[in-house]
Amino acid sequence: MSEPDDVSLSLSDLFDLARKVLLHHGLSAAHADAIARVITQGQRDECHSHGLYRLLGCVRSVLSGKVNQHAQPTIRDVSPGVLAVDAHYGFSLLAFETGLPRLAEKARSQGIAAMAINRCFHFSALWPEVEAIAAHGLVALAMNPSHSWVAPAGGTRGVFGTNPIAFAWPRAEGHPFLFDFATSAIARGDIELHAREGKSIPAHWAIDREGRATTDARAALEGAMQTFGGHKGSALAAMVELLAGALIGDLTSMESQSLDDGAGLSPCHGELVIAIDPKRFLGSEYAIGEARAERLFEAIVTQGARLPSQRRFDARTRSERDGVRVSRSLYNEIMEVFH
Amino acid sequence: MSEPDDVSLSLSDLFDLARKVLLHHGLSAAHADAIARVITQGQRDECHSHGLYRLLGCVRSVLSGKVNQHAQPTIRDVSPGVLAVDAHYGFSLLAFETGLPRLAEKARSQGIAAMAINRCFHFSALWPEVEAIAAHGLVALAMNPSHSWVAPAGGTRGVFGTNPIAFAWPRAEGHPFLFDFATSAIARGDIELHAREGKSIPAHWAIDREGRATTDARAALEGAMQTFGGHKGSALAAMVELLAGALIGDLTSMESQSLDDGAGLSPCHGELVIAIDPKRFLGSEYAIGEARAERLFEAIVTQGARLPSQRRFDARTRSERDGVRVSRSLYNEIMEVFH
Repeated sequence: MSEPDDVSLSLSDLFDLARKVLLHHGLSAAHADAIARVITQGQRDECHSHGLYRLLGCVRSVLSGKVNQHAQPTIRDVSPGVLAVDAHYGFSLLAFETGLPRLAEKARSQGIAAMAINRCFHFSALWPEVEAIAAHGLVALAMNPSHSWVAPAGGTRGVFGTNPIAFAWPRAEGHPFLFDFATSAIARGDIELHAREGKSIPAHWAIDREGRATTDARAALEGAMQTFGGHKGSALAAMVELLAGALIGDLTSMESQSLDDGAGLSPCHGELVIAIDPKRFLGSEYAIGEARAERLFEAIVTQGARLPSQRRFDARTRSERDGVRVSRSLYNEIMEVFH
Repeated sequence: MSEPDDVSLSLSDLFDLARKVLLHHGLSAAHADAIARVITQGQRDECHSHGLYRLLGCVRSVLSGKVNQHAQPTIRDVSPGVLAVDAHYGFSLLAFETGLPRLAEKARSQGIAAMAINRCFHFSALWPEVEAIAAHGLVALAMNPSHSWVAPAGGTRGVFGTNPIAFAWPRAEGHPFLFDFATSAIARGDIELHAREGKSIPAHWAIDREGRATTDARAALEGAMQTFGGHKGSALAAMVELLAGALIGDLTSMESQSLDDGAGLSPCHGELVIAIDPKRFLGSEYAIGEARAERLFEAIVTQGARLPSQRRFDARTRSERDGVRVSRSLYNEIMEVFH
């Protein structure tokens, strides 16, 4: 339940507030719009770490002077199936929006296409992006490195980022089938929170500086995080470094961390997005493929299991009806910039 | 150590033996060659479940009369970035070999390309395939459904196959960076083995018919297997059903299982293979991307962690030098077909 002194906001109030804060800090209108949209989506879906709270980290990165606040992303046609969007050291979201129409066009003409986003500051979840691609009737896969907090399976030191992988499958009715998860066992913020509150953590989240599994959150922050799923998650995390780092001519999580040099800003690196046109793959059999996917989803939900993202979609329905609630302290912290 | 009555075989003896058995059972020379090559690779890399042992299951599927022993795979050009190879209900391996040159060509001209393999009987691991693609200097990703033994996270009944995902990154020197893992917590054969020996299984491998985690291997076989990594592995398993089933106009694991109807043959379904040309992505910066990947691998191995597949590559070195050893009982079982 919400605290009595929560602040109630409609989704459009929320968007306006986020936009105003970003403009106040000198971001161009195009960047402020793109970022405010995604922050609104995060808060709407009750993905709180990617909602209004994230605006604070975004502002911190802007204040550092490293982010190009007026960067105009430019598109380069790499090959018939590949484009690259150079973010010119601005935030990633405008670069994604800039490249999306061309990516969709390529996916339709080629069947499968890839978009590299390069040289961007990245603070956002990937689900708004794969969801936007699915809205074009396309299948989407996206991934990016971050900072090298995560040790490989059997190792003792950080090499990988939290390296999320997101996927969306468009559906004729309702929300797409969609997932977006970190290849780390847990978000870094969760370990920080436990450390701050003096709580212990589950032993599979992290290792200490000697590479031993630890339940001590502080020891974990000095050591390294673990991937999810043992050596399998570790293999996937490496794949993300290779595809969304080395392949696209951009930084790995180790390099991004070096560049940050302890400043704690939004990581600066690239992102890889793949879009596939199921209509192109299936041709006249498109409806058969669609029905096959629906039977799979039905077999999952009729046995009482959930489709990924269902909680977010439920929250979305609530927020679109009732607006969102933001804690008074977060609201005040955000409003402080105007004083 | 090997038993005193193991049979010693050179790799070429092994290939000849496998080929002879397959020809004896009526497979065309093209199919026998393709299958014998991959079975030799499995035994060579000490991937025993995919070595000579697998020949027995392959023969069982042939004896069922359902496999087309003389199928000549045909290629269909779906779009500039996509081809489909129809296996015409033969085994998958010849279809893969048939499509590979065209897939490589498309990846080079488009930057990224996909190959669907349709209507094939599938018994092989994916690593020989992504390794073959990497030998062309291309990055590879492959996946396929199987039979619906695996429950979704939070569910009680099988929906997904063991749904392997394999990935390879080509390296200038030595073996590619390569992984190939099931999205199930464990191979089904491992549970069967435990049941036969009356041993208990770890609680995260499977659930019983009521959906409760079980350590009883027999109860597990009557229930369903679990995915690796909880809801994340479950999401990946669903992605494999969608990409290597619904998207390519082929069967999901549920459909493949229905088709088999308890016969216990090699599953009949499709496979999706994606190939990416890093030279096309990186252009004049190819060497920079390559060096970046090598630094990642170095950061993993210098801290004492292993790259995936290292054990297989070590076994390969041994087998290429010393040949392989096969248990007398397996050897006799295979030789029986000639009596």
